[in-house]
Amino acid sequence: MNFDDLLTEEAKKIIRETLDVKKENVNEAFAAQPKQVSVKTDFLSSANVQNHVELYEDYIEKFNNTSAKLDSVDKSSVNSNHSGFRSIKIDETFNMNGAYLHELYFSNIGDAQSRISMDSLSFMRLNRDFGTFDDWQRDFIACGKASRCGWVVTYLNMYTQSYMNCVIDLHSENVPVGMYPVIVMDLWQHAYYRDYLKDSDAYLSAMMKQLRWSVIEKRFEKADRILNIIRGA
Amino acid sequence: MNFDDLLTEEAKKIIRETLDVKKENVNEAFAAQPKQVSVKTDFLSSANVQNHVELYEDYIEKFNNTSAKLDSVDKSSVNSNHSGFRSIKIDETFNMNGAYLHELYFSNIGDAQSRISMDSLSFMRLNRDFGTFDDWQRDFIACGKASRCGWVVTYLNMYTQSYMNCVIDLHSENVPVGMYPVIVMDLWQHAYYRDYLKDSDAYLSAMMKQLRWSVIEKRFEKADRILNIIRGA
Amino acid sequence: MNFDDLLTEEAKKIIRETLDVKKENVNEAFAAQPKQVSVKTDFLSSANVQNHVELYEDYIEKFNNTSAKLDSVDKSSVNSNHSGFRSIKIDETFNMNGAYLHELYFSNIGDAQSRISMDSLSFMRLNRDFGTFDDWQRDFIACGKASRCGWVVTYLNMYTQSYMNCVIDLHSENVPVGMYPVIVMDLWQHAYYRDYLKDSDAYLSAMMKQLRWSVIEKRFEKADRILNIIRGA
Amino acid sequence: MNFDDLLTEEAKKIIRETLDVKKENVNEAFAAQPKQVSVKTDFLSSANVQNHVELYEDYIEKFNNTSAKLDSVDKSSVNSNHSGFRSIKIDETFNMNGAYLHELYFSNIGDAQSRISMDSLSFMRLNRDFGTFDDWQRDFIACGKASRCGWVVTYLNMYTQSYMNCVIDLHSENVPVGMYPVIVMDLWQHAYYRDYLKDSDAYLSAMMKQLRWSVIEKRFEKADRILNIIRGA
Repeated sequence: MNFDDLLTEEAKKIIRETLDVKKENVNEAFAAQPKQVSVKTDFLSSANVQNHVELYEDYIEKFNNTSAKLDSVDKSSVNSNHSGFRSIKIDETFNMNGAYLHELYFSNIGDAQSRISMDSLSFMRLNRDFGTFDDWQRDFIACGKASRCGWVVTYLNMYTQSYMNCVIDLHSENVPVGMYPVIVMDLWQHAYYRDYLKDSDAYLSAMMKQLRWSVIEKRFEKADRILNIIRGA
Repeated sequence: MNFDDLLTEEAKKIIRETLDVKKENVNEAFAAQPKQVSVKTDFLSSANVQNHVELYEDYIEKFNNTSAKLDSVDKSSVNSNHSGFRSIKIDETFNMNGAYLHELYFSNIGDAQSRISMDSLSFMRLNRDFGTFDDWQRDFIACGKASRCGWVVTYLNMYTQSYMNCVIDLHSENVPVGMYPVIVMDLWQHAYYRDYLKDSDAYLSAMMKQLRWSVIEKRFEKADRILNIIRGA
Repeated sequence: MNFDDLLTEEAKKIIRETLDVKKENVNEAFAAQPKQVSVKTDFLSSANVQNHVELYEDYIEKFNNTSAKLDSVDKSSVNSNHSGFRSIKIDETFNMNGAYLHELYFSNIGDAQSRISMDSLSFMRLNRDFGTFDDWQRDFIACGKASRCGWVVTYLNMYTQSYMNCVIDLHSENVPVGMYPVIVMDLWQHAYYRDYLKDSDAYLSAMMKQLRWSVIEKRFEKADRILNIIRGA
Repeated sequence: MNFDDLLTEEAKKIIRETLDVKKENVNEAFAAQPKQVSVKTDFLSSANVQNHVELYEDYIEKFNNTSAKLDSVDKSSVNSNHSGFRSIKIDETFNMNGAYLHELYFSNIGDAQSRISMDSLSFMRLNRDFGTFDDWQRDFIACGKASRCGWVVTYLNMYTQSYMNCVIDLHSENVPVGMYPVIVMDLWQHAYYRDYLKDSDAYLSAMMKQLRWSVIEKRFEKADRILNIIRGA
């Protein structure tokens, strides 16, 4: 297998560029920093938001924690019934998803001036792949109601090459393989119980009125470029 | 929000191009076609392979089946404790993952002339993100042994922006959000029990000797280009 | 196989007695009635309790709902990847556990005069099987902290023939086979978020101060008699 | 709370008797011994049976392993996102169920002279709670087909106070709380793949022809006595 024969010129250029992205400490665990979170909305109490941010920070801590342990845990006697490696690896994914989804959630809600333009990419894609924008909304709300302590996510599906919604339970159950998330809503009871008790419908409606479409639009732009790559362009 | 202001020229070009990809029947369910599968290897009996392909075809059938049902199921009275929408939606993801992972698996095994070149992108990336190529191999095997009727996958992690391995149980448990799969190995008992009984280690070793690196290389090329987009290039 | 030879006199007597318990409508679905719930405690707000009872009533409704559907759903073309029977059957267990655990929970908390006597069976059994009563308490609290939207339960384990604690996620994950529950605590976020936000430790401590030991004692009495039967007495 | 006031004479007698069952080493982990397994049937190859028994022995080993670790693991800093206690506790239940279900399975199959008598308790109870014996069989087979790498179990349901079938995935998902198992069938792929490949229906039919009703009858006798206790007799 030969480097020069295998790759297109474009690919080689990209490779040379990305090789410059040096990872200096390859054996050290990935250490994520909690992002600054600022959610201002009349629809959530500050006690709720403050607690939610602290939950997020714990996912970051536990993700770093598991990631560091995996550098030194025994990999020679692993088995599926019980082994430290399995337990830590499973929890790494759980906490990583918890951290990632919360970051995407916090940054795509709380826009009091929320508007989606009909000529935005977001609108066009939701319109195209769900039938109409309203069909997307109905499907997204249905997914939200269906989630059992989890999430609803609109994502680019790299397998079907289209945008779809999914229902995630907890952080890592029922997750599609090959997804790039663009719109993320938290449906754990901790997201709404303080302010809405069991009325998750009211919470979900409120949140959807203040989706931060400027942030979502940038995700759709990246998603569409990813889709082009998947399609082999 | 204005279309022209928001997007770079490149993004607009991509959008115009992809808008040409017409989805004529937006309301019709996605209907996947089973791919032709041909796995020739001394390490698996033909009875085993033949049965495995039939299992894959059932995932395709059930994915189409659930996808079609979701077009007409009631979305107004959905709830998380029990509703047709939830059940079908969860099973859509299960079968979609089952179909997708099997396609990736079948096409990346069974290469009797398997060789990985040290100047391939695959080698360089595994080397960079796991420490050494051997470290990747050890981690991949450990993940394989840890999987409880499921999969081990090397994937581009869009959150950490690096290549990682994950342990999936069944098809949709413990799945990382934001993953692009590049190397896929089936660890369900149906993959090896006929030929290896409970000796999944022997099966895994055999399979890894015949990874189809030419196919994997193309996935890494796409993954690296996706990574560039994620990083904002 | 002969009725008279197989059974002891005692067994025959029991059989004759229980045969009198007529189930008149064998083909009709089991229809559970929600029990009257009255939880009075300074440790939970009435809004919290009221919402919690309504959640419980929904589990009852959904249990009856799934149970009724199972009487008429097609059983000839069932499969594990996707079928109505599977979905409804899984949800029957989920909602049945949700209903049962809530009934056990509501009736074993909120006793402001809570005291456990050292000569009670509860005390003697916890003492015997956990080392000391305090050891039981430490283990129970640890299980409570470990639960991921679920339950901690002290139960008679029919396999080990001893009392143990378990950590249940949601309602039906990580559930021991062959358990008879005696002490039940709800650790879903809906149980405490309104009043304690994410401080589940404070909630758990408060609840344990008001365990209704009179109710628990009766459960231990039954459990011990069951244990005698399991042991072949 | 007073010992003498609380208990019936019968309960006191039982308590006094069972107190004699001394547990000498309360702080030591439960250490299970693998039971001798002998399954002789034309429907399973000896390679299959031999491998199956070895899988069972690993569950016993891992159950003892987790149980021992729980004696010394830190219980003060447990949390639900990631902690050693949680991981080991979850795996204890997984392996305990794996061990228990396999014991029940091995001992209730492989009876070449299998016959169920119409005047047996087994027959009468299945008949009573499922409508007819054939209805039980249809439901049991449907549950078997619905199981996703798991089990189908006929059990006494202590909540509904009747016999039901359930579909368990893996060993500890979708397990009813308060169940006493009476008929147990393994539907993991390891149970049949060697001999039947993906034709689990043929495997299930074969197994059901050789259910060991003499063993099952004794379980029903115990179950019925347990039911009497639950009912407050």
